[in-house]
Amino acid sequence: MSGRAARRIEVIGIGGIGEIAAGDSLADIIVSAAQAQRTPVDDGDILVVTQKVVSKAEGMTLDLAAVQPSASALEFAAVTGRDPRLVEVVMSQSREIVRLDTDRGIIISETRHGFVCANAGVDTSNVPNGAAALLPEDPDRSARRIHDRVSELVPNVSVAVVISDTHGRAWREGQVNLAIGVAGLAPIRDYRGTTDTFGRGLKASAVAVADELAAAAELVMGKADGIPATLVRGYEFLPPGGTASDLVRDRVNDLFR
Amino acid sequence: MSGRAARRIEVIGIGGIGEIAAGDSLADIIVSAAQAQRTPVDDGDILVVTQKVVSKAEGMTLDLAAVQPSASALEFAAVTGRDPRLVEVVMSQSREIVRLDTDRGIIISETRHGFVCANAGVDTSNVPNGAAALLPEDPDRSARRIHDRVSELVPNVSVAVVISDTHGRAWREGQVNLAIGVAGLAPIRDYRGTTDTFGRGLKASAVAVADELAAAAELVMGKADGIPATLVRGYEFLPPGGTASDLVRDRVNDLFR
Repeated sequence: MSGRAARRIEVIGIGGIGEIAAGDSLADIIVSAAQAQRTPVDDGDILVVTQKVVSKAEGMTLDLAAVQPSASALEFAAVTGRDPRLVEVVMSQSREIVRLDTDRGIIISETRHGFVCANAGVDTSNVPNGAAALLPEDPDRSARRIHDRVSELVPNVSVAVVISDTHGRAWREGQVNLAIGVAGLAPIRDYRGTTDTFGRGLKASAVAVADELAAAAELVMGKADGIPATLVRGYEFLPPGGTASDLVRDRVNDLFR
Repeated sequence: MSGRAARRIEVIGIGGIGEIAAGDSLADIIVSAAQAQRTPVDDGDILVVTQKVVSKAEGMTLDLAAVQPSASALEFAAVTGRDPRLVEVVMSQSREIVRLDTDRGIIISETRHGFVCANAGVDTSNVPNGAAALLPEDPDRSARRIHDRVSELVPNVSVAVVISDTHGRAWREGQVNLAIGVAGLAPIRDYRGTTDTFGRGLKASAVAVADELAAAAELVMGKADGIPATLVRGYEFLPPGGTASDLVRDRVNDLFR
């Protein structure tokens, strides 16, 4: 038995952030809130921020009253009992419909970013009544902006940023948090070329660590608890070497379309 | 800005576990190793254990030299350049082949447990040369056994156990850790009936927290680092209300077969 210190990471929820409005600087708000709860952003921290507050800060919400549903949106809405204006928004945010399930009112589509998820990431929870939140236009750019501003506010620290969203999966029940934007860290840790304790190649050759960081963050963020940001501390991330688009499988390599 | 304490969880890797052999009591070994590194198992901890050591302790490994490949295994192996004996084992561990990609030698199948994954979870890394590790026969039962023995060894604490494995996903690159067995906690946190800060129903109605716990654990376990077990501390899990089978989507409800 060794006496060495255990390897550990901490996942710290950042509360006291309040309602976010279009134009707000999330980086400033989060850095202040982290300081106020006496867990200031520190060197090596990974800041995980939920898509919802990023979309709000970027003004990526719209008023459903202004939406004119198309004929196909009206049709799907009639069959499924869903709001035709919301169906219209989902369709307009989709590059391709992957599955439509009229029995259960499910739309699985590919967003313009390449994410395959329900409702093209459009969401009416935690936004004012009659509004819908869209995904950020370019979540990697959103992550980069937050990253750069945090680096200005807290000089001489190296931080990474992950924008998280909650998605369903094929084959498995329940949703999990995953990364839709990253800055400052490699989203995939590639084990190809490394060997196991018996000197042989490893099965799990590429681990989506950005998705795992987002999942870990969800455990402290919950859903309606007013914790839209999290610090993951103590994880030795690899230096930047990609974007969240690296986490999206090319259509030609995808066996499940 | 509030002065309240931040909500936080810790993820603590347990090292010093060494090579596991058939018949070993993982619970005893892990409890001792956690103690030796001065992070003893504590009340409310969630113990995440990798499938590989569970399979070894349960003797779920086999010698490839003893495997007689079938005609179809020989055929797939010939086309893909894979080991026909390993292909045979993968097929024998599969209830249904979901996708075969001969170009890349990929077998996605449903295991007898219902997991849809590559190679039916059969794996030749971190096992002696010429051997292959199968999934535990019943990972929920494995989790229960470890849970019950930990509860004997550390009386008056309430712990939960998650057996983790690393799986690929549809649509996304990279693999993530997820839960194939659970004991002592509800694997899914259901938000249906709860409301957002605007009093409306939540989009993410059911979160697969057992999968997120497994993902968080992977961040400290890595792949070849000799950390096959982790304590997640500070996460207020819901009392038991299911098994890891609850995380497996019924075939009839699955749009991606």
